[in-house]
Amino acid sequence: MSIHYSSNFFQAKRKYLSVTWEDFYTTRISDKLDFFFRQGRLFDVLFSQQFDREFIERIFTITNKIRLVSKTKYGADFLRSLLAHKRAMLYFVQPSTRTFLSFHSACQILGMQTAAVQSIHTSSEVKGESFDDTIRTFSSYFDIIIMRHPLEGHAERASFVLNRTKRPIPIINAGSGKDQHPTQALLDIFTLMRSFQPIGGIDEKTIMMVGDLKRGRTVRSLSYLLKNFRNVKIIYSSPDEFRMNSDIKDFLAEHNISYTETSEFEKILPQADAVYMTRIQDEHDQAGESKKTDFSRYALRLEHLDLLKSNSIIMHPLPRRTEIDPQIDNDPRAVYWRQERNGMRIRCALLAHIFNLETKILEY
Amino acid sequence: MSIHYSSNFFQAKRKYLSVTWEDFYTTRISDKLDFFFRQGRLFDVLFSQQFDREFIERIFTITNKIRLVSKTKYGADFLRSLLAHKRAMLYFVQPSTRTFLSFHSACQILGMQTAAVQSIHTSSEVKGESFDDTIRTFSSYFDIIIMRHPLEGHAERASFVLNRTKRPIPIINAGSGKDQHPTQALLDIFTLMRSFQPIGGIDEKTIMMVGDLKRGRTVRSLSYLLKNFRNVKIIYSSPDEFRMNSDIKDFLAEHNISYTETSEFEKILPQADAVYMTRIQDEHDQAGESKKTDFSRYALRLEHLDLLKSNSIIMHPLPRRTEIDPQIDNDPRAVYWRQERNGMRIRCALLAHIFNLETKILEY
Amino acid sequence: MSIHYSSNFFQAKRKYLSVTWEDFYTTRISDKLDFFFRQGRLFDVLFSQQFDREFIERIFTITNKIRLVSKTKYGADFLRSLLAHKRAMLYFVQPSTRTFLSFHSACQILGMQTAAVQSIHTSSEVKGESFDDTIRTFSSYFDIIIMRHPLEGHAERASFVLNRTKRPIPIINAGSGKDQHPTQALLDIFTLMRSFQPIGGIDEKTIMMVGDLKRGRTVRSLSYLLKNFRNVKIIYSSPDEFRMNSDIKDFLAEHNISYTETSEFEKILPQADAVYMTRIQDEHDQAGESKKTDFSRYALRLEHLDLLKSNSIIMHPLPRRTEIDPQIDNDPRAVYWRQERNGMRIRCALLAHIFNLETKILEY
Repeated sequence: MSIHYSSNFFQAKRKYLSVTWEDFYTTRISDKLDFFFRQGRLFDVLFSQQFDREFIERIFTITNKIRLVSKTKYGADFLRSLLAHKRAMLYFVQPSTRTFLSFHSACQILGMQTAAVQSIHTSSEVKGESFDDTIRTFSSYFDIIIMRHPLEGHAERASFVLNRTKRPIPIINAGSGKDQHPTQALLDIFTLMRSFQPIGGIDEKTIMMVGDLKRGRTVRSLSYLLKNFRNVKIIYSSPDEFRMNSDIKDFLAEHNISYTETSEFEKILPQADAVYMTRIQDEHDQAGESKKTDFSRYALRLEHLDLLKSNSIIMHPLPRRTEIDPQIDNDPRAVYWRQERNGMRIRCALLAHIFNLETKILEY
Repeated sequence: MSIHYSSNFFQAKRKYLSVTWEDFYTTRISDKLDFFFRQGRLFDVLFSQQFDREFIERIFTITNKIRLVSKTKYGADFLRSLLAHKRAMLYFVQPSTRTFLSFHSACQILGMQTAAVQSIHTSSEVKGESFDDTIRTFSSYFDIIIMRHPLEGHAERASFVLNRTKRPIPIINAGSGKDQHPTQALLDIFTLMRSFQPIGGIDEKTIMMVGDLKRGRTVRSLSYLLKNFRNVKIIYSSPDEFRMNSDIKDFLAEHNISYTETSEFEKILPQADAVYMTRIQDEHDQAGESKKTDFSRYALRLEHLDLLKSNSIIMHPLPRRTEIDPQIDNDPRAVYWRQERNGMRIRCALLAHIFNLETKILEY
Repeated sequence: MSIHYSSNFFQAKRKYLSVTWEDFYTTRISDKLDFFFRQGRLFDVLFSQQFDREFIERIFTITNKIRLVSKTKYGADFLRSLLAHKRAMLYFVQPSTRTFLSFHSACQILGMQTAAVQSIHTSSEVKGESFDDTIRTFSSYFDIIIMRHPLEGHAERASFVLNRTKRPIPIINAGSGKDQHPTQALLDIFTLMRSFQPIGGIDEKTIMMVGDLKRGRTVRSLSYLLKNFRNVKIIYSSPDEFRMNSDIKDFLAEHNISYTETSEFEKILPQADAVYMTRIQDEHDQAGESKKTDFSRYALRLEHLDLLKSNSIIMHPLPRRTEIDPQIDNDPRAVYWRQERNGMRIRCALLAHIFNLETKILEY
């Protein structure tokens, strides 16, 4: 699969105007990417599959530049002028303070004004409005929709609806269903790139992912994006009941990405260049399965720090529970709070990309 | 009834300082309009009865100008500078995403900063504060209150309270009770004016209103405002149980406005210059009366398009349920999404009017 | 106790890095103030005990200047430019419309962008995140946290957490638990100072405090701050069951501040220079004790106005219930609505102080 930065949108539009949603939705992602691009840039950000290495490095450059520019009041004023004429709808049907505030801050850094709908109950859906009409309404008032939805495919559905009208606006998927959360994947990759910059980048590194791998969206997306780097080794460390699903493992095998699975934790730590800790996703429990498993073995404690390489890093998508002892926060290898701030800046970069401001920012 | 754009506010204030709310509230609207005007301009926007043809055309001009100016970044920056020193309170005790976002966007377009109270439960009313004190508190912090309230007369009450203090701020009624929603009426009229501009305006046109006419606030206000135009014909199409109330019909008769009532729908379509579709207001049901009636006959389906005049328009205040097949959205006569965007811009124009910015905008 | 405007923060930080929260929390406030100061200015605003007379007069000057500057559009534009590059988190776990809107407006007046978390249920705490991690997350995205919390000590805890990291941001306590609400105390003092400016200031005045003195946070803080003025006399007027607690009376005795207690109300009114009315805090009732007491005697009615000195003032922290007849609002001695607006401006001044903008504002 390769991504063409060409402008085949109108061709795609013509094709999909007469297609039902069901047919569109079941089309392979790689076959419909043109529908979400415009003139060599992402228009809708829906899937991790939209990011190739070229794109990742492009965003990496912009993110770093934004970080530097924002340090002075003068620079912050410049950034805030860029999208002051645009307004964003943050449509978060599924609550998520962290992702919400990260996007909200990103909008504010670029000067964009925002409005938010954070619950389905305040919306017109109560009066029987369809999801499609709600999205069209947002497109009447706003210049972009950033949405999070508990149901899979809803961000894509929003794009499908708007891209067939005369006035489409971009959609950013801020998490929909239990599968896709593309900006989280992007910020994880960014953090790896930036942390490993002094030691040759992500290529050749060993990434250990720990915890509830079966239901963790972030470890799935991260695994996927690692295909863009050379000779990466993945070690999955989890209780047997929460091992990574086979779809991802098939994907890795197909792309010749080396991975191993283990229920060990401590023993493996010395091998890792990055330890990516995750929490138990017990909100997805069907019958209390989380409680039957002893997760306490998959937690990083102070005494583990001695086992870790001196130039390794510890990541976590947050929020955490007991997976990492807070006393570890002060260790220079703990990068999860930086990872969180990276999320805000990478979302700025993504907005800048969508609204074609990259050159303006780089030339500052 | 005619509206005097003179400055009789202080005379009115003196008169109403010693009057009880009950006496004020039961005063005929036409007799107390001066209390809501300042120096030839609306200060409080409470009733559709405040809009005469001169005002409607004034707002029409500003709205169009705002639409044009906002198209460039330069123009958008100009608009955003106009009210950057003002702050608005959006007090929406009764939820309404569409109206809220429309006003919110209008404020942002003019640069006004906003705060919102969207539920009675987050407010000081919980601690036993009176409505009057809540409104005074808002007037301490803000420059205008835009309010929606489930109880009739509450927007007027807010004006009554503030206009008797030394520091009144304007009130805009964004819907109170089941009777008044003046800005909705204004955007409907605007959409008719703009759509009919190439064919001689609203005068002489036939407006068909369809659906739950008994309880629909928008068709009531629209009927009322049509008195400002010449030789308009109204056709009310509804199930017998949901016919337009007699107060409006008496009003039309009094003003020699021609109207007919019918339970037919399809048959009438060819006569209409505008078809104004509405949804069943079943939230006002007392005993499930909506379910006893077959509303499916009062819905616009694809095959009806052939029956409609080629230069007619289809309107809907939204949200819709099944009254209009979404496939009709692509027909050039379907103007309801444009109608929605008009709402945002007409609210800009109204704010510009209240804060005396009309000249500044027209001279841009 | 005296406040040193010196920069002993790093010394304090070193000391408190290895101290547990429990030990820190139980340290005498006067002994740990350095931890909340930076370079002669407040960094964290947590306790009324942080305000001495020098500070109070400094804030008084800035507040007055802000009031004047904000009167013109040009001045308002200037103020709004000052903190346009900063963003504030309003973390109001305990709802309070008035305090929230007051701070929100203050942020907007200085151009600061805001985000709000107004309920614990929308936050990551649902996913099991600790309070400390929530605060650190806010510090990733924002430049200041303004917080209100139902539990005592939580604002201090937030400062304790952040001041030990490399990237602390200021915390303002907007009310935590039933004890501290320092900005309310400051606005009350400001209102007294400003009202008494023509008659020699607060020194030598008689301040009468009325109502539920036992559980009223504002009367407690106000009593405390009055120690900064000379020869003030306090009269506590309350039902016997709701008398001021002994900790405050001990404090007054210790500082030679004269006070008397009475269950009389009417009879005392002629002596007062300021009458500070409060409402029953029945939300703190344990067993309906408020209902057993006749509070109706502690209410200001129209006929009382004749008993009051002509240059006295009537204050109330609001919201009010029946403690003051609304008809009194028009009396020139009723300053509670002004007091409310003072709250907004003093919060501006506090933000200006924290972000080192005092000189810039005074030189305007």
